[in-house]
Amino acid sequence: MKMADRRISLDHGSGGKISHKLITDMMVPAFHNEMLARLDDGAVFPVGNRRLAFSTDTYVVDPIFFPGGNIGDLAVNGTVNDLAMCGAKPLYLSAGMVIEEGFPERDLERILRTMSHAADSAGVQVITGDTKVVPRGAADKIFLNTSGIGLIPEGVDISGRHARPGDKILLSGSIADHAVTILTKRAELGFEVSLKSDTAPLNRLVEVMLKACRGIHVLRDPTRGGVGTALNEIALQSRVGIKIHEDRIPVKNEVLGLCELLGFDPLYLANEGKLLAFAGPGDEENLLAAMRSDPVGREACVIGEVVEDHPGTVFMETRIGGERIVDMLTGEQLPRIC
Amino acid sequence: MKMADRRISLDHGSGGKISHKLITDMMVPAFHNEMLARLDDGAVFPVGNRRLAFSTDTYVVDPIFFPGGNIGDLAVNGTVNDLAMCGAKPLYLSAGMVIEEGFPERDLERILRTMSHAADSAGVQVITGDTKVVPRGAADKIFLNTSGIGLIPEGVDISGRHARPGDKILLSGSIADHAVTILTKRAELGFEVSLKSDTAPLNRLVEVMLKACRGIHVLRDPTRGGVGTALNEIALQSRVGIKIHEDRIPVKNEVLGLCELLGFDPLYLANEGKLLAFAGPGDEENLLAAMRSDPVGREACVIGEVVEDHPGTVFMETRIGGERIVDMLTGEQLPRIC
Repeated sequence: MKMADRRISLDHGSGGKISHKLITDMMVPAFHNEMLARLDDGAVFPVGNRRLAFSTDTYVVDPIFFPGGNIGDLAVNGTVNDLAMCGAKPLYLSAGMVIEEGFPERDLERILRTMSHAADSAGVQVITGDTKVVPRGAADKIFLNTSGIGLIPEGVDISGRHARPGDKILLSGSIADHAVTILTKRAELGFEVSLKSDTAPLNRLVEVMLKACRGIHVLRDPTRGGVGTALNEIALQSRVGIKIHEDRIPVKNEVLGLCELLGFDPLYLANEGKLLAFAGPGDEENLLAAMRSDPVGREACVIGEVVEDHPGTVFMETRIGGERIVDMLTGEQLPRIC
Repeated sequence: MKMADRRISLDHGSGGKISHKLITDMMVPAFHNEMLARLDDGAVFPVGNRRLAFSTDTYVVDPIFFPGGNIGDLAVNGTVNDLAMCGAKPLYLSAGMVIEEGFPERDLERILRTMSHAADSAGVQVITGDTKVVPRGAADKIFLNTSGIGLIPEGVDISGRHARPGDKILLSGSIADHAVTILTKRAELGFEVSLKSDTAPLNRLVEVMLKACRGIHVLRDPTRGGVGTALNEIALQSRVGIKIHEDRIPVKNEVLGLCELLGFDPLYLANEGKLLAFAGPGDEENLLAAMRSDPVGREACVIGEVVEDHPGTVFMETRIGGERIVDMLTGEQLPRIC
């Protein structure tokens, strides 16, 4: 198709292959700098002899209120987590709101209250903000951007480019809880579901992990595009192969059932309070123990390892003993999931 | 009206009195910290022995392409300017996009290219970003958040709270160009208008000003709500009276004519490349000369002074010699102006 006719599709926002292409083909060349080109969850820059991390995310989740949270704590936790995935201690957030005319004030109050609690829980401060109101129909209810700044402790050097053959891959808990919660809320299934979003700040967990283990190479929170896409990004960034084991990946029974019913693969569904960690061989036991000592890492487990073969590719040993390639998410499963 | 029934109106996003109330009544109490409560264009925080400024703004301008610029350079310049108004040297930006499904790729390319040029012109780098795509009708075309980080030079201490009686008030050039450009573009007037938006980075101008004059107390770019609202904010923040002189405020003839035709007061209309500066008595001549030496400050002039009487109030000596109170903008003149 000619450039002139091409249009942005929902796939471009999926967090999967087409998103990745949009970023590498359009964004990175447009802004041509090494910090952006690293494609980590945040950018790292020096100030004096300190290093800061800087990250941004806009939240467009629909519905804005859902079991386990709302767009407010999702936005605070999401940016806190992006900073934590750079190994940074999150410090300050901004909040930029686009609100549709007619939006109920009490809903805004509720969102602000939740943001405030989430910021307190994560130990960060919202220090600057902006509010735009657009006429009815020009936006759907409310969109919320949070950007954040964190301080990277001395000696910490974490990047999606640092995975090495032999690394063990750890996952902090069960997958797909957030996406399936949003999905069931939208689908109005007609039966009771006890599931809730896993939205949570991961910065305390990361602090505990960094204290326990100096050999952490990569941290990544598998949000849009899920664990499958996050691992593919890392395989590409580090030019390594990745092997995971299906039977080791924790998925709640209820999530698995709903995924089968609705036709989704939990490996590609968004998480909002989980992380992947890559650690050198021999470090995984220490790290696992540290993760399990933290409330949000209780169910942590080793799900795979980095291999030398087939750089840029993710393989999964299936439950029945076969092996299949786990590609990046192609197409969009769930618009407005976060 | 009961809280339960109150709804967000366009007035809440006007930048005027209702916006101010939303911020002071809801945002500041929700996030309860001293940095946010200062209500400057950005927040200032320390890192080691340095001070950084942090600011955020979401751009929802309609139309997205207009004479003099587009949403891309508007977003880069806007956040660069908010940082410069803290006295900071802007360094890094984030870009968070919400794009409507079906948006033409070539328009996105054009916006990204403009952002890139604007960043180069201002000497800043876009180092992190995020893209969300929402289904058709859930957002109008594209919204663009930029957040930014700047470094405050040693000895610089600028805030809307630092205006003092005797200060002279300088304005860097003609007012209302941006808003009238957007307005005429929307109104499809049927005759040719040569006007264009004044969108421009102000950080070089601020650098020149800070070099020429150590006695700058306040800097503010009069965007949404215009010069009238910006001065009211400063009068409130510093608890001083402000007196301005109508005949000293530069307004292009074409702008004046269109304002009369369309029923707008240029004093309340948005600027995207102008600044107000407050400097101690005796400093204004130096400062004025410095401003006029810079391309974006060529038409700089002294428009008024800070007085002891009536703290929190802005007065204007009118062209015909009378005096009237210049209130904050009440209600919304122009939604989606920036």
